[in-house]
Amino acid sequence: MQKKNILYAQSGGVTSVINASAFGLINSALRTKEIDKIYAGIYGISGILEGKLIEINEQPTEKIQALRYTPSSAFGSCRRRLKEEDAESFKKLFQIFDEYKIGYFFYNGGNDSMDTAHKIDQYARTIGYDLKVFGIPKTIDNDLYGTDHSPGYGSAAKYLAISMLEASIDTRSMSKDSTKIFIMETMGRHAGWLAAATSLAKLNGDFGPHIILLPERFFDEDKFINKVKYEVEKNGYCTIAVSEGIRYKSGTFVSDMGFTDSFGNRQLGDAGRVVANIILTRLGLKVHVATPDYLQRSAGHIVSKTDNEEAIKVGEVALEMALSGISGFMVTINRVSDEPYQVQYGKVPLFEVANNTKYMPEEFITEDGYGVNEKFIKYAKPLISGESYPVYENGIPKYAHFSLRDKQK
Amino acid sequence: MQKKNILYAQSGGVTSVINASAFGLINSALRTKEIDKIYAGIYGISGILEGKLIEINEQPTEKIQALRYTPSSAFGSCRRRLKEEDAESFKKLFQIFDEYKIGYFFYNGGNDSMDTAHKIDQYARTIGYDLKVFGIPKTIDNDLYGTDHSPGYGSAAKYLAISMLEASIDTRSMSKDSTKIFIMETMGRHAGWLAAATSLAKLNGDFGPHIILLPERFFDEDKFINKVKYEVEKNGYCTIAVSEGIRYKSGTFVSDMGFTDSFGNRQLGDAGRVVANIILTRLGLKVHVATPDYLQRSAGHIVSKTDNEEAIKVGEVALEMALSGISGFMVTINRVSDEPYQVQYGKVPLFEVANNTKYMPEEFITEDGYGVNEKFIKYAKPLISGESYPVYENGIPKYAHFSLRDKQK
Repeated sequence: MQKKNILYAQSGGVTSVINASAFGLINSALRTKEIDKIYAGIYGISGILEGKLIEINEQPTEKIQALRYTPSSAFGSCRRRLKEEDAESFKKLFQIFDEYKIGYFFYNGGNDSMDTAHKIDQYARTIGYDLKVFGIPKTIDNDLYGTDHSPGYGSAAKYLAISMLEASIDTRSMSKDSTKIFIMETMGRHAGWLAAATSLAKLNGDFGPHIILLPERFFDEDKFINKVKYEVEKNGYCTIAVSEGIRYKSGTFVSDMGFTDSFGNRQLGDAGRVVANIILTRLGLKVHVATPDYLQRSAGHIVSKTDNEEAIKVGEVALEMALSGISGFMVTINRVSDEPYQVQYGKVPLFEVANNTKYMPEEFITEDGYGVNEKFIKYAKPLISGESYPVYENGIPKYAHFSLRDKQK
Repeated sequence: MQKKNILYAQSGGVTSVINASAFGLINSALRTKEIDKIYAGIYGISGILEGKLIEINEQPTEKIQALRYTPSSAFGSCRRRLKEEDAESFKKLFQIFDEYKIGYFFYNGGNDSMDTAHKIDQYARTIGYDLKVFGIPKTIDNDLYGTDHSPGYGSAAKYLAISMLEASIDTRSMSKDSTKIFIMETMGRHAGWLAAATSLAKLNGDFGPHIILLPERFFDEDKFINKVKYEVEKNGYCTIAVSEGIRYKSGTFVSDMGFTDSFGNRQLGDAGRVVANIILTRLGLKVHVATPDYLQRSAGHIVSKTDNEEAIKVGEVALEMALSGISGFMVTINRVSDEPYQVQYGKVPLFEVANNTKYMPEEFITEDGYGVNEKFIKYAKPLISGESYPVYENGIPKYAHFSLRDKQK
């Protein structure tokens, strides 16, 4: 039997541990007799379609080892999604698969990426190309269906909880005669998983946050202002997490600035800044706003050990399952118990992941809608457990650097 | 000879290592025979004037030990500055000093705080009260006169360099068909020390930043847009550090939104967001913006070891010098050599610190004004050297928590 090659690629928004999954897969594959070569696609399906693949077996061991703690996408990612009607692309893709003798395709991404992986699996079956397709889960949004949580969420949650803790101590110290309000805007357009994670800051001392604005609740300005006043009176200051996705009852995003530029792009605003200006205008209190943006999803310097280990494991399990001969699934993490925290690894059909979204359960949200309760803490606490640090040189992390440029250039 | 008591307090914007200086001073003072009690003032001079002092000797050892890695101001800070004409306050202050038998006053802060410390020293001499006053330097802005650098700067610089590195890798990975520009706004209204620090991200691999907008150079929109176009063509993406203090040639701050609210407050804007909208409008490229705000000055989770150790040391040296009988100085750090990095500790009169500002040398800035050169790197690299981590519990740091509330309440 002829040995087959692997193609691995990354897709969608990045996380702090997506490369740890690459490491898990690659490190296992390098020791597997059934596998000949391992390729990584550059910029996901987008670069693969242009024939941009790099051979991992040729890369120095230290670089592969560094994937374990390198955040973001070391091989480049994309937002491109393959559609059924895109016949030319499928044809081109399978020419490349054939040329590189690809027998296993692993796509590391979120919902949209699982949709693309599903279509590739379907196409292979249709044309009778022997390909095992597996999805490896990844997203800081934690909205992937079929898995207890997604690798990437735990580290983003840890980053946001720590940042909120540190900024809350800061705000407390300035509150006597200066800043009384601190706002941190988090990612998460449709579900409050990330904003909710800031509540974990209260596990060690009650510095904040005092209010969490979740996308699951409409933003009511009067009710909110009353809550802020109450918290400032009670604590002397108030720290607030604002999800970028909060909306008014009308359905309008709070962050919508209401105008479009000459290219037709909606002018950018920040929900956190808008909320800050409401407080400033109505209460006249000094407000500071932080918007970590990309920092929350690529903070390799403070990764959850649990998340890092699970990310490695889902890469390993994907390989194992694909080698067993099945295809068309995404690896899942199934929680066995909260305390002690235990998980098992399973699988879910790609099309189910592609067609569903996991929202944050209503039962996690407090009655007044301005926070999350013990049920959320019980769920999220194990996910941020333990610290995993990168290797440092010159005072900054020494992350893996793969060239994403064409060799010709 | 009757033993005297110490009063220590914190003032101005906080840093990740100001409490490390408190630890250095307190830990030394606890072993010093000449000292009876150690008090910490709550909310700086502002709380002291209300008689809010806590007795450190009564605090549990673990809490004092945790000061070593607790960011922000553990005892509370203030923006209040004592003025000569404020006779009542001086009188009140010295009544409190007398009541608590304070023989040593240590004020941990920046320029304004050194001005207040200077005036307290002068007042003590005038009324013949035997008080030794010492300043302990602290500021992320690195603008304190008379010292090679200020404790707090190295850790903020490290945080910003790492954040820029991580976000640059992120932007690179998304750049094929999504985000091409990433902007991070840094603090530093008058000097570019913090924005410049992001250049240290390039010590390990050239991911970015590609442009640094310093307050030392006027913001020229056309020239800047050309530079952005050039960098995007060259790298496929472009990451940019923007100092909050950048101004147009007219003198107007780029962040000025141009209107005032009903309380007379200038409506808040972000220089980073304004620059992002200029790029979006003129080039139509997708832009992401991060504004770490307080996170950059209270990131106890990733402190420079060098900075942490120096912060402890300036606390110890302040005590030593004050015990030797002198008064009216701030401790300084004097660099002996860059490689190997060596420093000595000295002192500078408080009034000199109060009346001067240390700007970033012109010779550190590149010819085109969009970055800093090797001279800056040589200066800043040792300051971010080494990692100092806090103690964790429940997946987040276990920081010291001193109550800042009145006991009566």
